Amino acid sequence: MSPKITTELLKQLRQVMKSPKYVQEPVQAYIVPSGDAHQSEYIAPCDCRRAFISGFDGSAGTAIVTEQHAAMWTDGRYFLQAAHQMDNNWTLMKMGLKDTPTQEDWLVSVLPEGSKVGVDPFIIPADQWKRMSKALRSAGHDLVPVKENLIDTIWTDCPQRPCKPLITLDLSYTGVSWRDKIVALRSKMAERKVLWFVVTALDEVAWLFNLRGSDVEYNPVFFAYAVIGMNTIRLFIDGDRMLDPAVREHLQLDSTLEPEFKIQVMPYGSILSELQAVGAGLSPKEKVWLSDKASYALTEAIPKAYRYLTPYTPICIAKAVKNASETEGMRRAHIKDAVALCELFNWLEKEVPKGTVTEIVAAEKAEEFRSQQKDFVELSFATISSTGPNGAIIHYKPVPETNRTLSVNEIYLLDSGAQYKDGTTDVTRTMHFGMPSAYEKECFTYVLKGHIAVSAAIFPNGTKGHLLDSFARSALWDCGLDYLHGTGHGVGSFLNVHEGPCGISYKTFADEPLEAGMIVSDEPGYYEDGSFGIRIENVILVIPAETKYNFKNRGSLTFEPLTLVPIQTKMIDVNLLTQKECNWVNDYHQKCREVIGAELERQGRHEALRWLIRATEPLRVQ
Amino acid sequence: MSPKITTELLKQLRQVMKSPKYVQEPVQAYIVPSGDAHQSEYIAPCDCRRAFISGFDGSAGTAIVTEQHAAMWTDGRYFLQAAHQMDNNWTLMKMGLKDTPTQEDWLVSVLPEGSKVGVDPFIIPADQWKRMSKALRSAGHDLVPVKENLIDTIWTDCPQRPCKPLITLDLSYTGVSWRDKIVALRSKMAERKVLWFVVTALDEVAWLFNLRGSDVEYNPVFFAYAVIGMNTIRLFIDGDRMLDPAVREHLQLDSTLEPEFKIQVMPYGSILSELQAVGAGLSPKEKVWLSDKASYALTEAIPKAYRYLTPYTPICIAKAVKNASETEGMRRAHIKDAVALCELFNWLEKEVPKGTVTEIVAAEKAEEFRSQQKDFVELSFATISSTGPNGAIIHYKPVPETNRTLSVNEIYLLDSGAQYKDGTTDVTRTMHFGMPSAYEKECFTYVLKGHIAVSAAIFPNGTKGHLLDSFARSALWDCGLDYLHGTGHGVGSFLNVHEGPCGISYKTFADEPLEAGMIVSDEPGYYEDGSFGIRIENVILVIPAETKYNFKNRGSLTFEPLTLVPIQTKMIDVNLLTQKECNWVNDYHQKCREVIGAELERQGRHEALRWLIRATEPLRVQ
Repeated sequence: MSPKITTELLKQLRQVMKSPKYVQEPVQAYIVPSGDAHQSEYIAPCDCRRAFISGFDGSAGTAIVTEQHAAMWTDGRYFLQAAHQMDNNWTLMKMGLKDTPTQEDWLVSVLPEGSKVGVDPFIIPADQWKRMSKALRSAGHDLVPVKENLIDTIWTDCPQRPCKPLITLDLSYTGVSWRDKIVALRSKMAERKVLWFVVTALDEVAWLFNLRGSDVEYNPVFFAYAVIGMNTIRLFIDGDRMLDPAVREHLQLDSTLEPEFKIQVMPYGSILSELQAVGAGLSPKEKVWLSDKASYALTEAIPKAYRYLTPYTPICIAKAVKNASETEGMRRAHIKDAVALCELFNWLEKEVPKGTVTEIVAAEKAEEFRSQQKDFVELSFATISSTGPNGAIIHYKPVPETNRTLSVNEIYLLDSGAQYKDGTTDVTRTMHFGMPSAYEKECFTYVLKGHIAVSAAIFPNGTKGHLLDSFARSALWDCGLDYLHGTGHGVGSFLNVHEGPCGISYKTFADEPLEAGMIVSDEPGYYEDGSFGIRIENVILVIPAETKYNFKNRGSLTFEPLTLVPIQTKMIDVNLLTQKECNWVNDYHQKCREVIGAELERQGRHEALRWLIRATEPLRVQ
Repeated sequence: MSPKITTELLKQLRQVMKSPKYVQEPVQAYIVPSGDAHQSEYIAPCDCRRAFISGFDGSAGTAIVTEQHAAMWTDGRYFLQAAHQMDNNWTLMKMGLKDTPTQEDWLVSVLPEGSKVGVDPFIIPADQWKRMSKALRSAGHDLVPVKENLIDTIWTDCPQRPCKPLITLDLSYTGVSWRDKIVALRSKMAERKVLWFVVTALDEVAWLFNLRGSDVEYNPVFFAYAVIGMNTIRLFIDGDRMLDPAVREHLQLDSTLEPEFKIQVMPYGSILSELQAVGAGLSPKEKVWLSDKASYALTEAIPKAYRYLTPYTPICIAKAVKNASETEGMRRAHIKDAVALCELFNWLEKEVPKGTVTEIVAAEKAEEFRSQQKDFVELSFATISSTGPNGAIIHYKPVPETNRTLSVNEIYLLDSGAQYKDGTTDVTRTMHFGMPSAYEKECFTYVLKGHIAVSAAIFPNGTKGHLLDSFARSALWDCGLDYLHGTGHGVGSFLNVHEGPCGISYKTFADEPLEAGMIVSDEPGYYEDGSFGIRIENVILVIPAETKYNFKNRGSLTFEPLTLVPIQTKMIDVNLLTQKECNWVNDYHQKCREVIGAELERQGRHEALRWLIRATEPLRVQ
């Protein structure tokens, strides 16, 4: 992987930063965040502006270009990758390290007095704008919105914005009709005394209307906004997608409906002017509800006195708590996914010793097995198939330049998942196809202990996920080890593999309390630069827990693993496990054997079934 | 406890609220917060204005008086007490309950249009002023500073502001001279490019100058402010205290000193005008550093563009990391404190069965034994001496009306501590003088497991205390139990028993990372309303930990208990402990026996020594 040469591009960008064609006044710095206009985590190729200007294509990062400097902020997952992908024009700012300046502090330290800092107001979330604008203003600079995206002006071969057909989901998948979701949303709006709600996140639009798309790779979403009033529904979406009879039927576009459920379809690009019209027509005390992460442009469309901003929208919160149909779908999806992985691991055990399986081949084989399963749609993220030192690159994705051959001498880490029409999966297993060293087993076992500590945790109703994060680290901490990422993220139901408002991380505090029906991942790890990576990840469902007592009648919660894929026992140093942990592994494997065994049997996959039986032999304390 | 009759006082207050003698324009509401001008947690009698006007003397509460209403906001700890102490003129606003309005919302609901709401600008912190002022302004009202405190104008027998003699602390106690502290402070100021630092918290003034006082009960502080420039030191303090030759010598007031270490002593009351003069003399880019919790009056003295506000001041952060002399002092103080408690517990075991020991008697006896120790100054907080159901009242303090006799049938909880010239202590032990029930032992053992989990935790450098909070709860959570308070607070070194910026609590996120040398409490508990309370509290010192590995060379930390008082083994259900926990208890008791045993021997306290030997018999797993 050689770095992208950006000298010429940076020169062009610095020119347009001063060009009266694009900016009212020259800007001395230009910020290129990684998001799109919906603050999506995964973005379409046309929105990969930060990767275009810098070469660094990890999922998180912010580039800032000044007349003299070009700097990239990213987090521990991407330090190595960013260092590899960027040329010497760029300074890597390692977030989370003590001496790394914030973007604001850095700007203040390098900018000449009274500078203007430009940013695309559709890309920067309102809360970030506010923070950054305040910090810059107090140092005598100005954050200014630059209407035309300056990267787009120099990106001559920028791809088209995708506009793919939609998928409609019926009640058997969603459990609740879009009409009922609108009713529930309006009741939340009435509770908070707001008249309008603006849906800006792509997965929230998809969830609200029980539609899916494929505009963004891995995320079954489509480019759209919605504005919901107490008596109106406006959907902002482009293309011929609304001509599809199935979609028209699903949204009842041609039926005679009560007016409050009649959907007005409008062009995607008209959201700003429509919202400005809504804003202009408000009377005192009439409020418009937006996420505080909505873009600065859309937020500014509503006069300040009329805005009602919250960190999590009512849709985000409702979407996180899966209903019975969604939970059942997630269970089915995870059973199919486990079948595919049993096939894969059986195949790997046979093929790896021959020396012909590369990281890319293994990833393709995983996708092949998954695609054989019913209702498979696509992968839910780029497969992390990594062996040996590549495993230490936390968000590694094999490419020909880095592609390494799996062997009986190295640890192999596979973090992969899929979108099925009934659910989304995300699972990581770490295996050795030869004889792991005592040290590798020791590290693996600490990670496993952390995984179990979260999965088996019992905690009161109302507990926020970040309070569980240290449980995952305790065994590693005891030996002076740790990992530099969070422990878990919310998982959508045939939606984004990363979703809010819950998660398990030391980094957040604003997460919403865990509730029965929420689904998160549990994925502690350990990474040794240049040697290996270990991660054990299950998707787990929050369920009520039975406890001996019940303090203040609050009730307790715990987790049920939805992922049912064997954890390689060869990697476990049984002597480091407590009896309780040992029982957890054995119970888990017993469940894998029963549930996945039955499905392998049903699908006639006898060889994989025999592999499963072998892989789930109970641990015995020596 | 009968309520205070406030009819006449409220009438007088409402008169001065309209009197041109005190207010430029009549105020329709007047806010009486509980703090003093230094935002102290414990306040002097002359600052108990909220208690004077309402009768309610709990540690937290805000009174608001309008022309028609008088309302008191307080939290769950004080609902009962406030209801008992206030007459019918007052409405109790129970904070934390769903339907309780905020002060702002309530004001908006009761005030006539365009009202003025008055408050003493010296008492309200700047951050609170900002929030409240914004809310009132958006509803068409005005928050206005009322220079003269209106309560003081009607409080005819208001006690004098205390002005007690000062204690000077030499290097053997403080480890660092006040000159070196000024040098370190100025270097932090230079780092942040500020020219002035305003010391507003009483414990920060005391720490900076290595002085102590006794103006506020339990807190060895004195009323003063300081303003530190790059070349000037101004100390604002009243009374004859500066005539004391020891103080003059300590501060080198009569020596020929380099001008930048010459302390200018100024009247306490002149802080505002002096600060205004500083503010008026600033050039662009010259900044003044203040805590964001400093009073509105002092904050406003500095024009907004020149203010540099932080949640924690550099003194707060430096003060939290104890140096070797302070740590050694804290160790000595805790040894003496343990001697006193061994005497007390030996005495209680003999006397309680006779039925003559009440909660108040036990608290007095504890103070008596402590006062026999060298360098004893006073208690560090009001002793919580509580038996049976009183133990479930978390901030209980025995008074004649509630005083209960200790017996062999009830759990006894003693949370107490002292100020010694070499350190501050705070320890809680829970004991039974008869036969505890299996359930009581079970609950006690879960609390103990939580206590050990924090005390024995190993964690990376840079970890914030709130990430350890769940360790203290895990054993309780497993059985559906919990406690509704944080797990630990910072402890001063012969200073306030509660101090920032570190702590162990699920409630904070803005805590500073733990560092070697910081001292916190570790005090999980379990409380059953109407039955009993359990808490096990040690003061613990953050120390470097030896670990098998050292990820990213970050280094690890753990804790060393400074408190060395036996934990009653009779209350422990050994079967619920792991071998590791059992070893922890035995090692802890072995250390108590060695260290405290030697001191008891030295002090010739042979009966207490025999008690200690009995109380530290090793646990044996059955």
